[in-house]
Amino acid sequence: MIQRIVIIGTGLIGASTGLALRAAKFTGTIAGFDASGTELAAALENGAIDTVLHSRAETITACESASVVILAVPVLAILDWMHLLAPVLKPGQLITDVGSTKLQITDAATRLFAGVQAATFLPGHPMAGKESGGAALAEATLFHNAMWLCTPPTEREPSAIEQEWRSWIAKFGARTLDLEAAHHDELCAWVSHLPQMLSTALAALLEDTFGNDPARRAEIDAIGGRALREMTRLGASPYSMWRDVALSNTDPVAATLLALEQRLQHIRENLKTPELREEFLLANKFRERR
Amino acid sequence: MIQRIVIIGTGLIGASTGLALRAAKFTGTIAGFDASGTELAAALENGAIDTVLHSRAETITACESASVVILAVPVLAILDWMHLLAPVLKPGQLITDVGSTKLQITDAATRLFAGVQAATFLPGHPMAGKESGGAALAEATLFHNAMWLCTPPTEREPSAIEQEWRSWIAKFGARTLDLEAAHHDELCAWVSHLPQMLSTALAALLEDTFGNDPARRAEIDAIGGRALREMTRLGASPYSMWRDVALSNTDPVAATLLALEQRLQHIRENLKTPELREEFLLANKFRERR
Repeated sequence: MIQRIVIIGTGLIGASTGLALRAAKFTGTIAGFDASGTELAAALENGAIDTVLHSRAETITACESASVVILAVPVLAILDWMHLLAPVLKPGQLITDVGSTKLQITDAATRLFAGVQAATFLPGHPMAGKESGGAALAEATLFHNAMWLCTPPTEREPSAIEQEWRSWIAKFGARTLDLEAAHHDELCAWVSHLPQMLSTALAALLEDTFGNDPARRAEIDAIGGRALREMTRLGASPYSMWRDVALSNTDPVAATLLALEQRLQHIRENLKTPELREEFLLANKFRERR
Repeated sequence: MIQRIVIIGTGLIGASTGLALRAAKFTGTIAGFDASGTELAAALENGAIDTVLHSRAETITACESASVVILAVPVLAILDWMHLLAPVLKPGQLITDVGSTKLQITDAATRLFAGVQAATFLPGHPMAGKESGGAALAEATLFHNAMWLCTPPTEREPSAIEQEWRSWIAKFGARTLDLEAAHHDELCAWVSHLPQMLSTALAALLEDTFGNDPARRAEIDAIGGRALREMTRLGASPYSMWRDVALSNTDPVAATLLALEQRLQHIRENLKTPELREEFLLANKFRERR
């Protein structure tokens, strides 16, 4: 039975996981660590965690006796923590993560958490979030109706504690879906990383074009409506998180970006031809089924 | 005093204008014409119009005695109606439109509605809409808090009836803003036409990539969240309307598309460099002020 949980990284996803556990009647302890004292204090104040861990050393010690360790930091930091914790954790313990890309993490898990002497590592990725992060925006309902993707190494049986953790995910209102890690990263490049880079590109382009001219900027602000707001919303996303996505999923993201560049060029070259109609009909078809 | 209004094109914008007039206590008659009998019947049924005009000939006759004629059809059809109605309308009457691009319409107005023998033409563009059109989706509140852009030819005084029509726009809850026509079209390329083409391109690309493979398509549907939904929402927009935008604002739209293609290429080539950080910071700055 899961009794002690350590959450490493008490930002939006980490703190929301703590709140979701409490909303689902988890009665054990939840200790938290974050590199930012502000995030940690906010998570403690809103009840996402009940114990503050003050250093990496203290966190590693707490993990030794934890039932579940949740890594809720950006991808490269997850890889760092995996290396720190692999020598410390033992069979019967579960370590899981919430990183946006899964291939590097799953490969590392196969190496670091292998054999009968190792804890179980479950690579996870809840498809939930907001364009702004931080424990202050955390919500117990963040995972309600969300997909919680998992990319477990194929060669192992799910341990009892992994099964118990999956039942908590279900209690958060999320559904788990298991995917092969490389396939996960390719799919997420399309549905998440490409929309992010696109929104960032559009917002950056508009800032470059209008940001330095107050009069033109005011016109854009006055005229721009829902379309502009929606298409640039993700432009508020922090580099700190997306840097790691770009670094750990470079080729799939580059491939989707190139495909979109070519598509935009095709539209640009066909603004006055019937080809434009074909593009609109394809797009209509995509939306009809949503 | 405005007593008789003819709305040509009783789709989303035309029918919403009728409903907004009624909600603002307009007590005169509102006659409507549409090439689609379905749209016309829907507009009559929801009270957007009170009289149905059954043919172009009947519509032209009704316009002869109208106070205000509203052209609420796509841009090229607006230009057609301007040519049909210019010989028929007289001083004291107002003809206005709701077209998405304004340069060609304003140029035509300067030629067709010039001199003391002519009716007043007010080129207009309410910044309101939905990704799906039709009278059935019309709402009296569609223009609430919206900008209603106008591009009147600069060399004329606003007539009394134009001023009265502007007061009705204010009663709809919208604010008018006068712009020079070419400047309007350039701004709208950035805030409206580029987001539309982008959303269409992304949705069309996803349909091409996943639409023919039910298993992959199901994965995209399961995993895609708010980001994908928002970024492809405008993909549902109809070609019939956007064809005329592309044809009547080709150069500004092409220029914004090219700029975005280059921006995406820049991001693609810098997924692993600190340049990516600059793009995120610019995008963050754009969003901070919204």
